Amino acid sequence: MSQASASLAAPRAAVSPWPARYRAVRAQSQALCAPLLPEDTVVQPVIDVSPPKWHLAHTTWFWETFLLKEYAPGYQLFHPEYAFLFNSYYNSLGSRVNRADRGTLSRPPLADVVAYRAHVDAAMAALLARTDLPPAVYELVELGLQHEQQHQELLATDIKYILSTSPLAPAYLKSASSADSDDAIVSPLHAKEAAWLPVPGGIYRIGFQEEGFCFDNELAAHDVLVAPFELQNRLVTNADYLAFIETGGYRDFRYWMGEGWDLAQAEGWEAPLYWTRRDGAWYRFTHHGLQPVAPAAPVTHISFYEADAYANWAGARLPTEAEWETAARHFGATPAGGTWLESQRFDPQPLPADADPAQCHQLLGDCWEWTYSAYHAYPGYSRAAGALGEYNGKFMVNQLVLRGGSCATPESHIRVSYRNFFHADKRWQFTGIRLARSVDSVNI
Amino acid sequence: MSQASASLAAPRAAVSPWPARYRAVRAQSQALCAPLLPEDTVVQPVIDVSPPKWHLAHTTWFWETFLLKEYAPGYQLFHPEYAFLFNSYYNSLGSRVNRADRGTLSRPPLADVVAYRAHVDAAMAALLARTDLPPAVYELVELGLQHEQQHQELLATDIKYILSTSPLAPAYLKSASSADSDDAIVSPLHAKEAAWLPVPGGIYRIGFQEEGFCFDNELAAHDVLVAPFELQNRLVTNADYLAFIETGGYRDFRYWMGEGWDLAQAEGWEAPLYWTRRDGAWYRFTHHGLQPVAPAAPVTHISFYEADAYANWAGARLPTEAEWETAARHFGATPAGGTWLESQRFDPQPLPADADPAQCHQLLGDCWEWTYSAYHAYPGYSRAAGALGEYNGKFMVNQLVLRGGSCATPESHIRVSYRNFFHADKRWQFTGIRLARSVDSVNI
Amino acid sequence: MSQASASLAAPRAAVSPWPARYRAVRAQSQALCAPLLPEDTVVQPVIDVSPPKWHLAHTTWFWETFLLKEYAPGYQLFHPEYAFLFNSYYNSLGSRVNRADRGTLSRPPLADVVAYRAHVDAAMAALLARTDLPPAVYELVELGLQHEQQHQELLATDIKYILSTSPLAPAYLKSASSADSDDAIVSPLHAKEAAWLPVPGGIYRIGFQEEGFCFDNELAAHDVLVAPFELQNRLVTNADYLAFIETGGYRDFRYWMGEGWDLAQAEGWEAPLYWTRRDGAWYRFTHHGLQPVAPAAPVTHISFYEADAYANWAGARLPTEAEWETAARHFGATPAGGTWLESQRFDPQPLPADADPAQCHQLLGDCWEWTYSAYHAYPGYSRAAGALGEYNGKFMVNQLVLRGGSCATPESHIRVSYRNFFHADKRWQFTGIRLARSVDSVNI
Amino acid sequence: MSQASASLAAPRAAVSPWPARYRAVRAQSQALCAPLLPEDTVVQPVIDVSPPKWHLAHTTWFWETFLLKEYAPGYQLFHPEYAFLFNSYYNSLGSRVNRADRGTLSRPPLADVVAYRAHVDAAMAALLARTDLPPAVYELVELGLQHEQQHQELLATDIKYILSTSPLAPAYLKSASSADSDDAIVSPLHAKEAAWLPVPGGIYRIGFQEEGFCFDNELAAHDVLVAPFELQNRLVTNADYLAFIETGGYRDFRYWMGEGWDLAQAEGWEAPLYWTRRDGAWYRFTHHGLQPVAPAAPVTHISFYEADAYANWAGARLPTEAEWETAARHFGATPAGGTWLESQRFDPQPLPADADPAQCHQLLGDCWEWTYSAYHAYPGYSRAAGALGEYNGKFMVNQLVLRGGSCATPESHIRVSYRNFFHADKRWQFTGIRLARSVDSVNI
Repeated sequence: MSQASASLAAPRAAVSPWPARYRAVRAQSQALCAPLLPEDTVVQPVIDVSPPKWHLAHTTWFWETFLLKEYAPGYQLFHPEYAFLFNSYYNSLGSRVNRADRGTLSRPPLADVVAYRAHVDAAMAALLARTDLPPAVYELVELGLQHEQQHQELLATDIKYILSTSPLAPAYLKSASSADSDDAIVSPLHAKEAAWLPVPGGIYRIGFQEEGFCFDNELAAHDVLVAPFELQNRLVTNADYLAFIETGGYRDFRYWMGEGWDLAQAEGWEAPLYWTRRDGAWYRFTHHGLQPVAPAAPVTHISFYEADAYANWAGARLPTEAEWETAARHFGATPAGGTWLESQRFDPQPLPADADPAQCHQLLGDCWEWTYSAYHAYPGYSRAAGALGEYNGKFMVNQLVLRGGSCATPESHIRVSYRNFFHADKRWQFTGIRLARSVDSVNI
Repeated sequence: MSQASASLAAPRAAVSPWPARYRAVRAQSQALCAPLLPEDTVVQPVIDVSPPKWHLAHTTWFWETFLLKEYAPGYQLFHPEYAFLFNSYYNSLGSRVNRADRGTLSRPPLADVVAYRAHVDAAMAALLARTDLPPAVYELVELGLQHEQQHQELLATDIKYILSTSPLAPAYLKSASSADSDDAIVSPLHAKEAAWLPVPGGIYRIGFQEEGFCFDNELAAHDVLVAPFELQNRLVTNADYLAFIETGGYRDFRYWMGEGWDLAQAEGWEAPLYWTRRDGAWYRFTHHGLQPVAPAAPVTHISFYEADAYANWAGARLPTEAEWETAARHFGATPAGGTWLESQRFDPQPLPADADPAQCHQLLGDCWEWTYSAYHAYPGYSRAAGALGEYNGKFMVNQLVLRGGSCATPESHIRVSYRNFFHADKRWQFTGIRLARSVDSVNI
Repeated sequence: MSQASASLAAPRAAVSPWPARYRAVRAQSQALCAPLLPEDTVVQPVIDVSPPKWHLAHTTWFWETFLLKEYAPGYQLFHPEYAFLFNSYYNSLGSRVNRADRGTLSRPPLADVVAYRAHVDAAMAALLARTDLPPAVYELVELGLQHEQQHQELLATDIKYILSTSPLAPAYLKSASSADSDDAIVSPLHAKEAAWLPVPGGIYRIGFQEEGFCFDNELAAHDVLVAPFELQNRLVTNADYLAFIETGGYRDFRYWMGEGWDLAQAEGWEAPLYWTRRDGAWYRFTHHGLQPVAPAAPVTHISFYEADAYANWAGARLPTEAEWETAARHFGATPAGGTWLESQRFDPQPLPADADPAQCHQLLGDCWEWTYSAYHAYPGYSRAAGALGEYNGKFMVNQLVLRGGSCATPESHIRVSYRNFFHADKRWQFTGIRLARSVDSVNI
Repeated sequence: MSQASASLAAPRAAVSPWPARYRAVRAQSQALCAPLLPEDTVVQPVIDVSPPKWHLAHTTWFWETFLLKEYAPGYQLFHPEYAFLFNSYYNSLGSRVNRADRGTLSRPPLADVVAYRAHVDAAMAALLARTDLPPAVYELVELGLQHEQQHQELLATDIKYILSTSPLAPAYLKSASSADSDDAIVSPLHAKEAAWLPVPGGIYRIGFQEEGFCFDNELAAHDVLVAPFELQNRLVTNADYLAFIETGGYRDFRYWMGEGWDLAQAEGWEAPLYWTRRDGAWYRFTHHGLQPVAPAAPVTHISFYEADAYANWAGARLPTEAEWETAARHFGATPAGGTWLESQRFDPQPLPADADPAQCHQLLGDCWEWTYSAYHAYPGYSRAAGALGEYNGKFMVNQLVLRGGSCATPESHIRVSYRNFFHADKRWQFTGIRLARSVDSVNI
């Protein structure tokens, strides 16, 4: 198995935690779809966005394929065609629906997918009730749970995109409004410039070094040489970014990577994804419908190209992946205090008014932070044998690393060593900007 | 108004027939969607195919736009954005959703569209209850009904395409099986070659010349000079077409138009749309799920390119539009006996065993018959003023005329002068082939 | 052979005219390329435009393939790969270079193509010196000459397009300036509206009915019923067309076919091809470089869409093919007085000041006139056997007929029955507009 | 100026070397085009490949724009449109011809470009004859020479591609045959497996640290931590690569990056670019025409995807950029013994039979070696002000670093710190493979 699980000692005494965890994670996926109508679960407005119905089925296919078919004797497939319909990208597992065609399939309908989930959940409950399972099974269960959490994040962001395409600007959540707008009190931390926090140079170890689960791409832990640098103590805010927009950041090629500039021109970008100007004011489409842009909230839904151009404009740069992880370890970043999927805010939140400027905030949660590091294999990485070898390894070129998780990430899913990755042009995730700068002095 | 209505004497005495006709036509649209799930009503697998939800809304928009906004004082729009969302192609009426993006919109959901229909139907009922309406209103009501019937045919064919994209091959109708397959008794008319029926040459008048409604494109009626020719007494059957397939018709460029050949190669065509070969036998996806190809039934779902190639292979040709209408008038074609939407067969049917070979069969109903005539304006045609001038006129180039209606056409919708039109590559309508040949003799 | 040659009695007595005709036509092709640099003969800026080097080679390939390989025993191919390199579109003759890739081939260079021409010309001279050739050979020679003349027209228009792509606006001919600009004296015929000339209705015979050569697509001659109509006595001029431009013709969809409107928007059309506005005045790229638009000269380089939109704007229509040929025969059109390739004007010319308004001018020469008739087979047309069956027949759908020849057509190449054809969007030929209108009266 | 020139002490005493260097470099560009016909200098068969005529003009434009316009008072532009025509990618310098359209321009012809070169060379000679120039001028002259050398490499590879598109397989050089084929004596070094040479781990400094010129992307020199690793003592050979092909390397997705696999399938790759199989044997198109594949020669014209897949297949990996430079410094790599542009071999050469297996061969010259490092800015890099800031910086994402130079690189152009970069799919450069592997032991 390609995903490491350093201390996956299958719990034997007392009550096994696995059935409850399984149920909780699975329930969370369906809860995310509860506000949707069947129509919302079918469409695929752009190739990156998969239909929610597909996510619900694909995560279920994962359990059926890697657990039930292998370890549950006598398991009956729910439907023989589903392996073809809901395989995402595993060449090892045969042909599949073209990614661009996921939104053309009205059948099976949502109700059948829900029945598929129930069928698989029942079989998984029976499997997890056993006490004779080898450790490899628990490793796969862990992977399945992590995999489903990854799709929960995609569900949150894909749903947003889907609802955004309608001029009706429908709200996913009607009850609570996004915290975005309660900006009456602006934190002093936002009213002035962000502070620079130093990180000393040295040889640091990055990659997964703790107990528990990690993805194979976080291994092997290895040493890196980091020159002294400084990191801003918070994410770049909408107010910061508006200054970039208003001083012509989208019209001056000198800040931009060449491919980013060409794309921005071709697509007519002049603000982050989901922003629209009405009567001179900027609004954003959110999970709560159209909302005014809140100055103190972190800017989000920007591509690497925009993040990089902003950093150039600001006279700074993006951190490298090694710098980011080094800083996160140095500042003792923890998930506490971040905005996560469970909050149902679905937007990065402003810092509280009493946030300490000497601390480094928002490293985990709120926004994925673009780094200026390509998503490549770590030293010592090797692909696993079998289908799971396709989980991460084959994507390790042409993409950039993002760190820290976002307001759409389940809180239990993140680590300081977690490596997310997207192409430089992608904007539909909750991506944001953290600035870094070099210390012009000696190397260590 | 561009659509002619020669004898549209608004009924004054006795009970007006309009409310009942309106209700019947509107109910038929919704009945067509009754077997669908909400998911089926959203998707647009190819640009030609519109989501059923869109058809239901667009036909309603037509009533709102052309009748209620004009003639119902105090009418309240159901929703201000719907004019943008459900305009099909009227530049006169402002911007609209790109045709290719109709399948990206999950909202408004089907339930809202149904409510929209009810809202408009109530207002239309009130309007039609009045006795003081000018004749122009009844002309527009007639046009609205005809327009809705056109979309009923599209609903039938678009639903078929949508369901066909799933490898699950779901059946739209589960109850009755397609008559296609009860082929135990094959009509003697099919067992031997079709007969050629002569049509004498002469000056004939074509175009609409009767009482009642016609579309503007059927006008002006005008004289044409027709050389003597012969027409086959029935449509080309699947058995006929299989001979073309099996003798290499799809592999021999000599039968094909150049653009058709290139397309057939690029797309890998080797049979009509919806055909698939399993274990050496041919099957077709139908409204009743996957069915064996029935030899005696007319071949359908073929492009002009295939119809023309077949005719070349058979040593014959397709009739011109003038020949077709002349023959239909000559042979006294009527809708009786044809297969229509109301039959819910959703497939052209074989001739009965006792069909008279001396008669010309299947001219109306079953399959639209490709002609070798471009869809151009008739002499004396002129576009109407206003938005309805866009109904037909702007399409009068680059397409070919089809005649006679199909098993998806409402029976009351057809006439011998009716002109349907599609691009040469289209296959998703119930299109078929009728062969003609010239009489090598003197002109008149 | 598919091309008819009603009276192709091979001349036997006296001196055969064939060798001289052959030499003259072949020399004309090379003369057209004389002003070019080798660089000009290679490029293919758009798919419609072939490199001049390719035209010179392809016409030569035609002689080699259809004459020398068949009828010249012992003929040695110039190069075995040339059959692949210079086949245009004959599937019968095997694979070939993709049309879009003709401009990627720098080799063979122009010098080799010229040597190829000399090699073939020598062999053809030997062949034509014989006195024992069967009539079929002379039919093929005639076809080869006509074929080469067709490519001469394409050479003229393709060269223009090639030179136009450079911002240097190089002149093909430096000596003479285009007559376009000597507009000091504007013909009174242009200063006022064009006159309408009546053509009586009746049954007319169209198609080739004379002695000599015609293409197979001009056959069979057949009777058509023509309603009485009127035709303008001259082509539409630049001044006429400027009024269309200036009154918003390119911005009002109501004049346009739907597909034409969409294309014009996508491409940003606001004037004919080659027009450019500088400091408020319109200029045109011509074979003589950039020239001011001459008001009295016929408008040219317009698509069918533009011709049709102009006619709608002008309250008229384009003639049908049958009307055009009927009128041309009725008015006794002859090539005399028209502007042809041999004039080296390479632009349609204004009428002389003393042109008789009661005559119908410019029917032959100057501009190909768009008709509102699809390019379909005539009754009785059938494709020839063998490769030459691909010459015309496979193009007989999706295109429109143009009539009359242009300033780039060799004068000896035209007839009143000649049928040219292009897709509705093409603009790089010398295409123009002749208006027609129906007589609102009785049919005959 | 963005390009560093640590010791660019403008030579004052004695004879200045600049005029001679300038003449030599400029002459080399034209010498490369000497075997071409004018037709060869125009075409652009794919977007990556520029017409040789364009290279000759663009390099000249560089001198005119950055030197003569700035520092030569009274300099007369050769032609006012050339700034538009021959700007490559400098947004700072205004609009330009779309890259994809370079091959549509037949004008200006080659002769005019040659005249342009002479005009600029004369002005440059006058400029360089002066003794009062500030050091900044010499920095720009140095950059112009380096820039022209870069285009010499592109000339060599673009010419190859251009000639390869013709089925005539024309030879650029007729005289000498590629050394590829003199394989009678195969070096023992090739007959057995390549040897692995160890490089000890440690902190190393990479980036430019010497005297003389470097590009800005080689700065700043900085320390990197390198774990101990091993490098093969030679490039991967055609024989090595054939084993990959023959054991199914192109048909097994497990070796491939996902995007590489999809591309290879879509394009039908089954061997390096320019390879073709005839009668069971592999041939390669070369500057000397079609040649048999020589087993002992290094494989070339492979994409990163192929290099990476090969490495996976071989149970090894590609080196990182830091490893490569560290090894090159460790092994004391020098240009001597490598194959360079000046050799006119235009192909990487087999090692001599007596090559020492204990040495690391072919590090400089022969083939650019793909590294598994993204082309990103070094720490401390910053873009220069003005147009030259676009020289390198805007490309620093989405590409991979290649090291070492190739048989098409001028020998004086290379350094161990030189960073070349291409997208992962590019194959038309002389790219090759050097294998690395980690030492599974302790980190330092």
